[in-house]
Amino acid sequence: MQIHELELVIKNADRAINNEDFDQLMDFYSEDATLVVKPGTLAKGKEEIRRAFVAIADYFNHSLIVNQEKMAIIETGDTALVVAKALLSANQKTDSAFSMERMATYVFKKDSTGTWRCIIDNSYGAELLE
Amino acid sequence: MQIHELELVIKNADRAINNEDFDQLMDFYSEDATLVVKPGTLAKGKEEIRRAFVAIADYFNHSLIVNQEKMAIIETGDTALVVAKALLSANQKTDSAFSMERMATYVFKKDSTGTWRCIIDNSYGAELLE
Repeated sequence: MQIHELELVIKNADRAINNEDFDQLMDFYSEDATLVVKPGTLAKGKEEIRRAFVAIADYFNHSLIVNQEKMAIIETGDTALVVAKALLSANQKTDSAFSMERMATYVFKKDSTGTWRCIIDNSYGAELLE
Repeated sequence: MQIHELELVIKNADRAINNEDFDQLMDFYSEDATLVVKPGTLAKGKEEIRRAFVAIADYFNHSLIVNQEKMAIIETGDTALVVAKALLSANQKTDSAFSMERMATYVFKKDSTGTWRCIIDNSYGAELLE
């Protein structure tokens, strides 16, 4: 099976999270992107999203590792829905080790240069409804 | 809580499905929309989507009722991700009565007239990964 361009984009974004390279990470988002920080809390735009990732890295005591185990990509025009099984782990979290699976949903859009940018990052998927 | 415009749009689309009013239903889709008919099978564009809905209505012996029990909507620019708990039921299915819950994901986009159209209809949500 051919690897979709977006799988590589998301792999690189995960690497940037895992390396805490927030400058590089912001490159994956559109200017007006929305990140679900947790159900009920959104970060809007690169500045807020960057701040959220810095806080998340802190919260996990700089040991967060994110990886997508499986992905399905559905494309229409310049927009794509990505459904992913994301694995999060952190072995240095202050109070306890941590590992969890999330069924995430992301929306990507091609910008005017043909580059895919994440416009909606909802790692909680349908958990938002709980 | 205020009702999001899209909740009404989706309610009306569900009504069109339940009434088997496929002309009206097609109005909710963009020209290039993608429908996940089932995992691995996509319908692309209004003609294929309409044909898929006719077949689905047939399959459920014209008794399919779709209803969204809960929705979360995340908007960025002209695009919105909808995560929904959808309830499907059919009491006249040939072999057995049928009822199921699905955690669905839809992507909507505002067209040039400001009307929301569904561009990706994935009622299977993360089930695509199974």
